[in-house]
Amino acid sequence: MKNPTASMLVIGDEILSGRTRESNMHFLAIELSKVGIDLKEVRIVRDYKPAIISAVRNLSASFDFVFTSGGIGPTHDDITSECMAEAFNCQIDINKDARNILEDYYRGLGKKLNSARLRMARIPKGAELINNSVSAAPGFSIENVHVMAGVPKVFQAMVSRMLKTLKRGTPTLSRTLKLLLAESEIAALLEKLATDYPKLSIGSYPFDINSEFGVNIVVRGDSSELIDEFINNLETKIKELNCFT
Amino acid sequence: MKNPTASMLVIGDEILSGRTRESNMHFLAIELSKVGIDLKEVRIVRDYKPAIISAVRNLSASFDFVFTSGGIGPTHDDITSECMAEAFNCQIDINKDARNILEDYYRGLGKKLNSARLRMARIPKGAELINNSVSAAPGFSIENVHVMAGVPKVFQAMVSRMLKTLKRGTPTLSRTLKLLLAESEIAALLEKLATDYPKLSIGSYPFDINSEFGVNIVVRGDSSELIDEFINNLETKIKELNCFT
Repeated sequence: MKNPTASMLVIGDEILSGRTRESNMHFLAIELSKVGIDLKEVRIVRDYKPAIISAVRNLSASFDFVFTSGGIGPTHDDITSECMAEAFNCQIDINKDARNILEDYYRGLGKKLNSARLRMARIPKGAELINNSVSAAPGFSIENVHVMAGVPKVFQAMVSRMLKTLKRGTPTLSRTLKLLLAESEIAALLEKLATDYPKLSIGSYPFDINSEFGVNIVVRGDSSELIDEFINNLETKIKELNCFT
Repeated sequence: MKNPTASMLVIGDEILSGRTRESNMHFLAIELSKVGIDLKEVRIVRDYKPAIISAVRNLSASFDFVFTSGGIGPTHDDITSECMAEAFNCQIDINKDARNILEDYYRGLGKKLNSARLRMARIPKGAELINNSVSAAPGFSIENVHVMAGVPKVFQAMVSRMLKTLKRGTPTLSRTLKLLLAESEIAALLEKLATDYPKLSIGSYPFDINSEFGVNIVVRGDSSELIDEFINNLETKIKELNCFT
């Protein structure tokens, strides 16, 4: 059985202008890999209706799940909810459950549910709410798209809650071999060996940090025995190589 | 005159698996904003030919410039150059200039230009090389696509070099007003004021860091006078608001 596939859609001018450093993607990538959902693509688009609608339609049709972050707050530049309704041709209106959640929350803070706050209860019809344990205003799921906040603390709480409800796959196993040599020294050997193990995925990632340089060979697959075998084989072949050069 | 538009294509399984935190995008976003090129979209795809080819064709047709990072090293998982050739229907072969650069570089290190290293001289026909002042192996420009390395130090050197050759626009001016209040308090006021200034772009970004919470209002546009006027106006209206609540 193949793992479910996923994509992420990040919405926000502040990321593309360089004002804010995107940080939700890395969190999501790690959480998805833990539950065996394969993240295949990420897109970052600005706060612009046609861009958001076109991206979400495209990703929703291409992958099992889409996770979005950003644009569901109370201000005029928060347009994600409207875009989702438009993308899936459904009505959008105040959701009673969301309204109740927000009323309770702001009452607890001694504040009124003003029109801006009420805006956060506007949810496409038929969508299911995603609980927000941090600041109340919910996300929602529509079709295969899970719409969440951009504020990292809220995004993380929503992802953790929501992943419990989704179909999972088999987490991909991974082992890394760190080598203090140039990747171009072993590239030919690595390519040959990779073709001998079609069930494994082999990545080669050079690094150059604090004047230590080398390469991390990352071996990924379903079987830890096969991964170990590959790494042992690679180590043996590198030793042989060094004897002849 | 409108600013040129740009998109970025990040290529690499290691980003999507969560193994590596993407860091080139933030650098590129800041550098582009300095020279008045507007970054409109970013896509991150895996090391998979159809995904890379489809993304680069789509972005190349939609924006003035495309900047790619990743997948031009010496190992079997480096497939960006082949993909670019295929995307633009051109031949790919050893580029003489690239070969000379690599020969000189490895000779200087007392090493041979083995087949893996020579792979880095495979460049689509008609492409122009992008100099790599860090580790020699060049990037290249084909059509409106600028293909660069994924290693941050190399990516940064290539971007800095290459941006000097591109058509620039007018850097967008920006001023931030930090407010220690909930964005939902001023959302209605902000929306009204934003519609009075259609030439400005107004973003509202809540924060909650080290138990300080509030909102940054970011005002962007071409005219510093107009931006200052907006901020003064906003501050006055917030004071008025506080008098009545």
